[in-house]
Amino acid sequence: MKRADAVADTAITLLAERGMRGLTHRAVDEAAGLPPGSTSNLARTRAALLELTLSRLTELEMKAMAIAYEPVPPTLDDLPARLAEAVRVQLDDRRRTLARYELALEATRRPELREIYNRAGRHFRDPAPAMLAALGSKDPVRHARQLVAFGEGLMFDAIAGAGSVPTVEELTLALRDLLTGMLRDEGAGG
Amino acid sequence: MKRADAVADTAITLLAERGMRGLTHRAVDEAAGLPPGSTSNLARTRAALLELTLSRLTELEMKAMAIAYEPVPPTLDDLPARLAEAVRVQLDDRRRTLARYELALEATRRPELREIYNRAGRHFRDPAPAMLAALGSKDPVRHARQLVAFGEGLMFDAIAGAGSVPTVEELTLALRDLLTGMLRDEGAGG
Repeated sequence: MKRADAVADTAITLLAERGMRGLTHRAVDEAAGLPPGSTSNLARTRAALLELTLSRLTELEMKAMAIAYEPVPPTLDDLPARLAEAVRVQLDDRRRTLARYELALEATRRPELREIYNRAGRHFRDPAPAMLAALGSKDPVRHARQLVAFGEGLMFDAIAGAGSVPTVEELTLALRDLLTGMLRDEGAGG
Repeated sequence: MKRADAVADTAITLLAERGMRGLTHRAVDEAAGLPPGSTSNLARTRAALLELTLSRLTELEMKAMAIAYEPVPPTLDDLPARLAEAVRVQLDDRRRTLARYELALEATRRPELREIYNRAGRHFRDPAPAMLAALGSKDPVRHARQLVAFGEGLMFDAIAGAGSVPTVEELTLALRDLLTGMLRDEGAGG
């Protein structure tokens, strides 16, 4: 493993376990078992360390979620289960998802970090409107946003909120409810 | 205003503007214009300061959202707009909502803070299953969770995620989509 990856992986763990206050160059050196100064050599400033960490986290999320982004176009029947699987992957790696939330909040205060966060977000968001349009959505851009927000809410509530962790069956039912509501025929249904 | 409230309000602002790292007893004294030691006198430990802050934040949220919790039982027609209004109130006070997210993450590491967070959460959650059952939900406990998660996701995405801030009309349409999907008649709709 490249040293930059080892440093970033340790930073992810520290963010999840100790929060933004627990992430320092020195704490990364210690937790990664690296000689003092190693993290500073790779990422001189705090901003650089946060950016390295978020870039690595995005790479890990993309790998983990690739399963859910199969090339086969979804149908309304199989899409809820596929999206539920993508949410479950994020819930299963609680450490990584908590670290992402820490970085999302920090990004509200750091424009450069926000840039990286939003670029990563687009990777997951951009395919959604075309997919929903193909399934018959009459407002695919809005519906795509709603779908992303729902996935995020299901994760945040289970990981950091007052909710318990849903099963993949519950996630599938939840996503089916939203998708059915979005794709209903207003004319016929009233 | 009671001094405890002034301290907590300042702590909320610091959490939103500087994150968990920016919240210290000394920073609260300075930002609130209080003599050094004032915050320590009120809340000796860091845990006590966080708990005081979260309790005050919950009180403020309950006041702000009371409008959305009207005593008149909702119909499927007016519920989306009423819930959208509740979400909008939270989006409008970005400072308070950001501070809540900081405390939600910190609560994953502090059981006493989690206790307060979840107790506050129950205040907003507990009325939902009966309300959804009255509207015809066949799985009101699950549906209530989904509804809360959706509201949280719409907020988190707009405030800390990669999304833009939705209008109250967009929020109403979003909540109508989910509610319609949850309350659909499976037998008739297919």
